[in-house]
Amino acid sequence: MAHTVDDLNAATPAQAQALLGDVYPQAPWVAAQALESRPFRSVADLRQRLRQAVDAAAPEARAALVSEHAGLPQPAGASAEETARLAQLGAAYADRFGRAPIAAPRGPRGTALDGRQLLDDLARRLDNPPDAELEESLRHVHRAAELALRERFGEPALGNHIWDWHEALSAYSDPGYAEKGQLTVTYLTDAHLACARRISEWMRDCGFDEITVDAVGNVVGRYRAARPGAPTLMTGSHFDTVRNAGKYDGRLGIFVPMACVRELHRQGRRLSFDVEVIAFAEEEGQRYRATFLGSGALIGGFKPEWLDQKDADGISMRDAMTAAGLRSDDIPSLRRDPANYLGFVEVHIEQGPVLYELGLPLSVVTSINGCVRHQVQILGLASHAGTTPMNRRRDAALAAAELALFVERRAASDGDSVGTVGMLEVPSGSINVVPGECRFSLDLRAPSDAQRDALVDDVLAELAAICQRRGLRYALEETMRAAAAPSDPRWQQRWERAVDALGVPVHRMPSGAGHDAMKLHEIMPQAMLFVRGQNNGISHNPSESTTSDDIELAALAMLGLLDALDHETTT
Amino acid sequence: MAHTVDDLNAATPAQAQALLGDVYPQAPWVAAQALESRPFRSVADLRQRLRQAVDAAAPEARAALVSEHAGLPQPAGASAEETARLAQLGAAYADRFGRAPIAAPRGPRGTALDGRQLLDDLARRLDNPPDAELEESLRHVHRAAELALRERFGEPALGNHIWDWHEALSAYSDPGYAEKGQLTVTYLTDAHLACARRISEWMRDCGFDEITVDAVGNVVGRYRAARPGAPTLMTGSHFDTVRNAGKYDGRLGIFVPMACVRELHRQGRRLSFDVEVIAFAEEEGQRYRATFLGSGALIGGFKPEWLDQKDADGISMRDAMTAAGLRSDDIPSLRRDPANYLGFVEVHIEQGPVLYELGLPLSVVTSINGCVRHQVQILGLASHAGTTPMNRRRDAALAAAELALFVERRAASDGDSVGTVGMLEVPSGSINVVPGECRFSLDLRAPSDAQRDALVDDVLAELAAICQRRGLRYALEETMRAAAAPSDPRWQQRWERAVDALGVPVHRMPSGAGHDAMKLHEIMPQAMLFVRGQNNGISHNPSESTTSDDIELAALAMLGLLDALDHETTT
Repeated sequence: MAHTVDDLNAATPAQAQALLGDVYPQAPWVAAQALESRPFRSVADLRQRLRQAVDAAAPEARAALVSEHAGLPQPAGASAEETARLAQLGAAYADRFGRAPIAAPRGPRGTALDGRQLLDDLARRLDNPPDAELEESLRHVHRAAELALRERFGEPALGNHIWDWHEALSAYSDPGYAEKGQLTVTYLTDAHLACARRISEWMRDCGFDEITVDAVGNVVGRYRAARPGAPTLMTGSHFDTVRNAGKYDGRLGIFVPMACVRELHRQGRRLSFDVEVIAFAEEEGQRYRATFLGSGALIGGFKPEWLDQKDADGISMRDAMTAAGLRSDDIPSLRRDPANYLGFVEVHIEQGPVLYELGLPLSVVTSINGCVRHQVQILGLASHAGTTPMNRRRDAALAAAELALFVERRAASDGDSVGTVGMLEVPSGSINVVPGECRFSLDLRAPSDAQRDALVDDVLAELAAICQRRGLRYALEETMRAAAAPSDPRWQQRWERAVDALGVPVHRMPSGAGHDAMKLHEIMPQAMLFVRGQNNGISHNPSESTTSDDIELAALAMLGLLDALDHETTT
Repeated sequence: MAHTVDDLNAATPAQAQALLGDVYPQAPWVAAQALESRPFRSVADLRQRLRQAVDAAAPEARAALVSEHAGLPQPAGASAEETARLAQLGAAYADRFGRAPIAAPRGPRGTALDGRQLLDDLARRLDNPPDAELEESLRHVHRAAELALRERFGEPALGNHIWDWHEALSAYSDPGYAEKGQLTVTYLTDAHLACARRISEWMRDCGFDEITVDAVGNVVGRYRAARPGAPTLMTGSHFDTVRNAGKYDGRLGIFVPMACVRELHRQGRRLSFDVEVIAFAEEEGQRYRATFLGSGALIGGFKPEWLDQKDADGISMRDAMTAAGLRSDDIPSLRRDPANYLGFVEVHIEQGPVLYELGLPLSVVTSINGCVRHQVQILGLASHAGTTPMNRRRDAALAAAELALFVERRAASDGDSVGTVGMLEVPSGSINVVPGECRFSLDLRAPSDAQRDALVDDVLAELAAICQRRGLRYALEETMRAAAAPSDPRWQQRWERAVDALGVPVHRMPSGAGHDAMKLHEIMPQAMLFVRGQNNGISHNPSESTTSDDIELAALAMLGLLDALDHETTT
């Protein structure tokens, strides 16, 4: 029943138009435009061409795609309360944007959305500026087209399977959160141990040869090479979560390679290297004041004094480990010898809006940005807002305002740097008092340590200059300094080739967030692949989402990388 | 024993230098320089010339005046704890400014300072930027010289008497505050009623002809003209206070004219007009959510619905009035007929830093600034500080930063306007989240309604433009709009002549804060006189202070105004 891209490429224009004409309902021009760029390299390429046809269209034609769309889908099993709330939000939406809200007819797995998902989506979009909301509506139109293409070219079977693993694993959540239907899995809780057991079982089902839980709680699966004594490719990510988390952060980087091993095993294929897939036990630093416990242990970075840290209930890390049957004494032995490893790759959901906004499913990571954070206090003189002339003020908040705008300019002028004043406050401020104090945070990140340090130097010099000019004092505390982890050029190139082979445009970007790859970076070459997040890339939030179509592409990219590496190391 | 300025003007240079040479100890050059501008018009003029000699000196000479000064005076009856704390602050001061702290040898009345006053002063000055603290230290040197001049030219008798009234009245404070040694007198409390009784008694001692407490609680004293049927000059200010207040805000404007009537009565002198001195019962709006109850009642501005307002203890204004023996039904009859009045004048402490920084004792007020206040909320999109590129952000705080800096520029470019962002907050901000919301206050004031409205228009237009450019939304609530009250030119000129006649430089400035004169402005011409505040002009604070020397000049200015007006209306 399913067509192939080759069929499409070979079809007459009329046949091709007949096949694709109603993928954008009421807008056959989209398909007609896209078909002019035949042949397509893949369905992913076709999707991109359709999207590009819309991008290139006149504003009226783009707006018509939204206004002629079928509105909101019927949610699956919505309560009366949810239905009422949906009508309410729909009216508020119409009031704000002058048109009815629309959404893709089905969810990220291609199945019906429930009432809560639709409500969350609509509530979030209500806060969009109008131009942003038009773009977001168009993304729903594209997603509807993507779902329509499935009917013609087949389901993303690998992606759906991986998507279902995430769903099944999200059944386990820490007490308190489970009751509220929220996902929270912190280090070595019952839910955490249950996750580890399920991952182990699924690894076994996939055909891994060895599955162990190591001394720090990592689940380690090994799929052996064709011959003994072969080097190892390590991959993986973490399965712990933040509080009230999404389902994909970390876990995508475990399940994608598991699905790859499952494919290899089904084909009875062995590679010229071992594949070691590690489900890292801890990355988020939620239960104890230490992060990267899982990946850190593999590079000898686990500090024994952490064992004495206590959680909010007074349970030490050592006791938690003992209760979980882990031998903390053995952690030092987890340290890997780089000589045995080819490198480390990690798949991760982007956790940002870039791919969502660009309409791209994947990105190759160029570097995990280095970061320096400060807490800043500026002191001026509090004085009466009515009686203190402008030229006699020592306004601490205006200095903070100047610096925040400098941070924006300076970071923007510097490729891939970011700078943020995220906390900002005039403590006990009054409407009629010139601010005598202002407190704020500085978060500065860049793809290399040198670029980061130059950014930090410039920002702190500007802070000093502003305070000097305005007659203010300031105090500064550096609260964090993390080194950048630039991708190994050869491994980055392997990802790029694998993405390109899928007919997907090769996009490159740094990672603004930290990842397990940062730790492995210290002892072996590494490179990461990002997968687009839905809902504007929201993360550390239950609305975190990614489609099984994008997951499919990530799995195919990893299979491509494994295949290419197999050829490289064999020949 | 006391010399006069005429003596000084007539003295030989050597005699004059002998008289003044050590007023600035170790710096006879100051007197020598000042003496070149003989003849002096008054001691106030002499003080100004001495100060100008210092202002014109080289930076090293000015710094030497501070470093060669006698340090801190011994506080009167300091506890061991205060002495220890003083040593501590002295060390911190030396650490910060590279020299020991200095202060004038005695306080604002010319009597010894106590330990707490010295401690408060030093603690405040520790926060000064170094350049500001050098100026502040020089002000202490000038104050020491002013005290030294008293020994040669006599005490400010009127000023001291008025100063003592403030001190005596500050013995009454509301329960809770009295115990903590804090001054708080809110509408119709026991302390408030006690103040009214004391003011009435003192008015009687001064020689007022009629003293009544009116239906709203104002104490009204009348000093009759030489002939019946004469018009009336009204003057006065309020005796209620904010919580934990200073002693001079409002009360100075009651006691200065009382002292003038006392002088007239002692001289057996009647004027060609009645003098009505009103101690307004309420201006600050502390106990009930209504302000200017006292002066408002005189212009028919008292709203009957206010009577139902309840204080924090659930006591209605009506019940509070009944308990105080006031007949609230009679409030409408308090309305004055402007036909009977020449005008209204008010003396007030400046409540700002201008005169303190300029080294001037008095200023004539050009206008009470009009004011518009807004609370503003800007909404953007919260996003990850690491993963959201600079060009994809909708940062609400940066828009607030831009606007705050615009307010500063716009107000500064506009003579005597002021604009303040006093409250500023990113609610629930995080170091790693781009601000999706920012809340702040806007306080915009100008000497005329037209100037104020142009300022407000420009600021709100800029807010709209910034949000448009950055793709943000905003919400705006106007929380206050007060009309400007420009001084009547003829009354302002009367104050100017009175000040000039004292040999004091005539300085003019708007009032940034609201005053009772604002209310009377609605029915009769008005003009105000400001008196310098010590301690950088701090107000609504126990450190509010003014010297008996400056109070003396204010009383002499008012006597001069009364005298001139008497001649004007007689001839």
